[in-house]
Amino acid sequence: MTEPLALSRIRVVLSRPSHPGNIGAAARAMKTMGLSQLVLVAPKSFPHPEASSRASGATDVLDAARVVNTLEEALEGTVLAAAMTSRIREMCAAPRWASEVAPELLAFSAQGDVAVVFGNETFGLSNEEVMACQRAVTIPANTEYASLNLGAAVQVIAYELRRCALEGRLAPLPQQLGEVATHDDVERLVAHFERAMIESGFLDPEKPRRLMPRLRRLFGRAAVEREEVAILRGMLTSFEAKVDRNTRDS
Amino acid sequence: MTEPLALSRIRVVLSRPSHPGNIGAAARAMKTMGLSQLVLVAPKSFPHPEASSRASGATDVLDAARVVNTLEEALEGTVLAAAMTSRIREMCAAPRWASEVAPELLAFSAQGDVAVVFGNETFGLSNEEVMACQRAVTIPANTEYASLNLGAAVQVIAYELRRCALEGRLAPLPQQLGEVATHDDVERLVAHFERAMIESGFLDPEKPRRLMPRLRRLFGRAAVEREEVAILRGMLTSFEAKVDRNTRDS
Repeated sequence: MTEPLALSRIRVVLSRPSHPGNIGAAARAMKTMGLSQLVLVAPKSFPHPEASSRASGATDVLDAARVVNTLEEALEGTVLAAAMTSRIREMCAAPRWASEVAPELLAFSAQGDVAVVFGNETFGLSNEEVMACQRAVTIPANTEYASLNLGAAVQVIAYELRRCALEGRLAPLPQQLGEVATHDDVERLVAHFERAMIESGFLDPEKPRRLMPRLRRLFGRAAVEREEVAILRGMLTSFEAKVDRNTRDS
Repeated sequence: MTEPLALSRIRVVLSRPSHPGNIGAAARAMKTMGLSQLVLVAPKSFPHPEASSRASGATDVLDAARVVNTLEEALEGTVLAAAMTSRIREMCAAPRWASEVAPELLAFSAQGDVAVVFGNETFGLSNEEVMACQRAVTIPANTEYASLNLGAAVQVIAYELRRCALEGRLAPLPQQLGEVATHDDVERLVAHFERAMIESGFLDPEKPRRLMPRLRRLFGRAAVEREEVAILRGMLTSFEAKVDRNTRDS
């Protein structure tokens, strides 16, 4: 059995994990399913002997793990990010079942790295963290006891991705016409929109309403392409130049 | 979301588990996916505080766990049993992927309890244990590192069963004409065949070849029905009576 290439493009991101044992269990779960990219956002204790012990034969995944300070850094360079959450949240994509989202994540991996983001053992992911992702994913658990251990949740998602990869289940990319923009491209686009909307007077930074989350959600859902980002930013730059000139002239 | 009834009919059987922590992790994994029947065959240490601690909120599953001495006892009353194994073994059903077998296990659960049997952490299941089951199941893991933790393996199987149950994926029962025989019925049938074949002189107990494993595999694969068991045993009884009479007469 050849290892599916797509799985090497999946980044497992653990945001603020509390227990080093769970980091080790996640590394082991990943390796059994052919995943290798582990990113830790501000882990409480890492490296740690308990992480190494629970990783068993997967210490190579632990050793290669990247430790970063923010989710933003963890998502750099990804073309798609999915947040693990069971809650429906305002301004975030509604969570869909892992079996439904996995084929889409694998399809995007043809264009670059795809992240799956797991929250802290007790608090899960913050609204801001879920909003930084373009998809929300849930494991359909027993409503009366939905408390999967962090390592077990990583195991299920890694298994689901592997199963779909081996069964050749890929979702068609929405309007797959060009190269999908990376997370950083989209972040810069959203930041550009915000700046331009403030300059133009359309957005009052004191009363932002929900313009920015809405825009972010739109671009995430649409899987905006690199070229579209260039067009939109070109347009914004022109507007900004115009606003500047008008301000100067008045 | 209503809990699918089929899941309450799934028995998770852990054969000779060494680490009580894994028993707890299995209980937690089961409960998150709506499974509740845990059977432990000759566990090394149980009950144990580590089992309770790893079970987290699923101590009810642990408390209700049945401890037995043999796999035979664990399988009593089941209509189908599936052995977790990655190896291909002589005289055993070839292992198939969990995603392929799960719909079949759920379909059988309409007729009674269905067991999924997990082996010891280090040694897995013995050939005899795999032969006692009618199906063999594997989790398609990384060939270079296939070492799933026991609790993680239970999590994946429980997830796969739940996913199939929620997606309504049931396999059609093979020739679903009547009531499927239970494990004990089939065991009694196989024992009856063995006795009759010895009495008839067809089977030499000193040189059994592989007659009994072959018969067992046949009945397992065919999902023999209660009525068929009655017919076959009736026939055997007639033969035995005939053999007796002939022996007496000669």
